[in-house]
Amino acid sequence: MNDLLGDYPVIIEIPVAWGEMDAFGHLNNVVYFRYLESGRVAFLRALGDIEFMGGTGIGPILASVQCRFKAPVTFPDTLIVGTRLRDLGIDRFTMEHRLVSRQLGRIVAEGEGLVVAYDYSAGSKTPIPPEVRAALLALQGVAT
Amino acid sequence: MNDLLGDYPVIIEIPVAWGEMDAFGHLNNVVYFRYLESGRVAFLRALGDIEFMGGTGIGPILASVQCRFKAPVTFPDTLIVGTRLRDLGIDRFTMEHRLVSRQLGRIVAEGEGLVVAYDYSAGSKTPIPPEVRAALLALQGVAT
Amino acid sequence: MNDLLGDYPVIIEIPVAWGEMDAFGHLNNVVYFRYLESGRVAFLRALGDIEFMGGTGIGPILASVQCRFKAPVTFPDTLIVGTRLRDLGIDRFTMEHRLVSRQLGRIVAEGEGLVVAYDYSAGSKTPIPPEVRAALLALQGVAT
Amino acid sequence: MNDLLGDYPVIIEIPVAWGEMDAFGHLNNVVYFRYLESGRVAFLRALGDIEFMGGTGIGPILASVQCRFKAPVTFPDTLIVGTRLRDLGIDRFTMEHRLVSRQLGRIVAEGEGLVVAYDYSAGSKTPIPPEVRAALLALQGVAT
Repeated sequence: MNDLLGDYPVIIEIPVAWGEMDAFGHLNNVVYFRYLESGRVAFLRALGDIEFMGGTGIGPILASVQCRFKAPVTFPDTLIVGTRLRDLGIDRFTMEHRLVSRQLGRIVAEGEGLVVAYDYSAGSKTPIPPEVRAALLALQGVAT
Repeated sequence: MNDLLGDYPVIIEIPVAWGEMDAFGHLNNVVYFRYLESGRVAFLRALGDIEFMGGTGIGPILASVQCRFKAPVTFPDTLIVGTRLRDLGIDRFTMEHRLVSRQLGRIVAEGEGLVVAYDYSAGSKTPIPPEVRAALLALQGVAT
Repeated sequence: MNDLLGDYPVIIEIPVAWGEMDAFGHLNNVVYFRYLESGRVAFLRALGDIEFMGGTGIGPILASVQCRFKAPVTFPDTLIVGTRLRDLGIDRFTMEHRLVSRQLGRIVAEGEGLVVAYDYSAGSKTPIPPEVRAALLALQGVAT
Repeated sequence: MNDLLGDYPVIIEIPVAWGEMDAFGHLNNVVYFRYLESGRVAFLRALGDIEFMGGTGIGPILASVQCRFKAPVTFPDTLIVGTRLRDLGIDRFTMEHRLVSRQLGRIVAEGEGLVVAYDYSAGSKTPIPPEVRAALLALQGVAT
C-alpha cells in the first residue's frame, strides 16, 4: 500500500469504529470528514514549532473541504490517511488527502481542503507568514 | 405525550438525523448521549443569568452519565428530551432525562447525569453556590 | 431569511447542539456534512413514492460532497438547510445546499453533493429511471 | 500502564481525534461512548465464531450504558480501552470498561454496559445460549 501514498509526507492510521457505519452498513460519508480533519491537523502539526496555530494571531481557517468516495468501507478496517500540499498561494494553500483501506488494499476516498491564513487581530485574510511558507515547502520536499 | 413529561421543567425537541442510525438501522446508542447533553445544556441555561458556567470560576463538571434504552428509534422521528433535577447535594446534583419519541408516542430512553461543582481556580470540588442552589430548586418548582 | 432560500424547494431546520462545537468554539466542520446529509435525505424523500431508494434495486450513491464555510456558527443557533437540484445528467445529478443561520440571518455555508444512480443487482452505474428524472424536475419546478 | 488493565482480556487502542474535543477543549463526553462501543464490539468479536450476532436469530441488545469520567483528555493522545465480563446472568451480562490515557498514564474513565440476549424471531428476551455462556467465561478466564 505504500506505493499508493508515496507522495504524501504526512501519514496517519485510524481504526474504523463499528459505530461509524450507517444504516447502509458502510462507513458513513460524514465520518470521512473527521478522518480528513485528522489528516489536516497532523499535517499542520508536522510543520513544527512555527506558531501558525497559536501565538502570532495568524492562523489557518478551513475555507472549504471536499471528499470523493471511491469504494465503500466496512468495519473492521483501518484507514491510512495521507496528506500533502498541493497548491500554495499567497494567503491560502490546498491540502490533498488520500484514504487507503488496509482491508481492501486500495484507495477508498480522496479529498482536499482549502486553508486560508487569517489574521485574528485584524479580522481579515493575510499573506501566509514566510516561515510557514518555508515549512510547508520543506514538508512537501520542495527545494526553496 | 405531554403527560409523559409533566414533571420535566426543561423540554427540547431534536429531529433525528438519518445518519445517526447505525448498521442495525436504529438510532445509535452514542447519539442518545448527544441528546442527553443537549438536554443538560438546556437545563443549565434555564437556570438563568447566574454565571454558573462562566465568570465566577465555579462551574459544572460532568462526573458521570448513564442511559437506559427502552425502544429502538428510527429515522424519521423527533425526540422530545425532558430534563429535571432529581437530587441536590452539597457539591453535586443529578439531572434526570426522559426521551420521548413523537413517532412512537412513548418513552424510548431514560438517562441521568451527575454534575459536580468545580472551582477552577482552586482545582477542586466546591459547594454549589447558594444562588445556583436557589435557581435549581426554583426551576424544579421546589419551594425554598 | 426566506429570500435567501427562495430557489430551494426542500427546506429543513436543524438546531445546533452545544456538543457540535469544537475546541475553537465554533460548529465543527464535520458537523456541516451531517447537516448536508440531512438536507440530501430530505430532498430524496421529497421525490415521493418512487422507490428510488428501495424496491427497484436502483438507488442513489453519494459520489462526492463539498462544503464551503462562509461564517462561523456558535451554539445556540438553528440552521436552515435548503436543498435544490442543480445539474441533472444521464446517470447522475448534483444537489446544491445552502445553510442559513437563524441567529446571524445570513448564509453560513454552501455545499453540493454528486449523486450517481447505481444498479445494485448489476453492480454498476445506470441511467436515472425516467420516473425519478420526472420527479427531480417536478420537485425543482422545471416544466417537462 | 499494563498493570492498570491486567484483568481486562480484550484491549484495543484508539487515537483521539482533534475534532473530538468540544468547546471546553477536552474530549467530549459523548465520544467516550463511541470508545466504549468499540470496546464492546471488540469483546463480542473476541467470543469467536459463535454466531451470537448473526445466524441464530439470537443476538445481544444494549440495554444500558454508563460512563464515569475521571480526568479530562486532550488531543493528542491515545486511549487504551480494556473490556471484561463482570456479571453473567441468565439472559444478560454486564461488561466493564476501563479507559487509560497513554499521555497521562492513568485511568481517565470507567464504564459499563448491560447486554441482554434477545430472540429476534420471538421478539423477547431469551436465555444466553450455552455456547455463548461458555465463550464469555472462557474469554474472562473463568474455569467452567
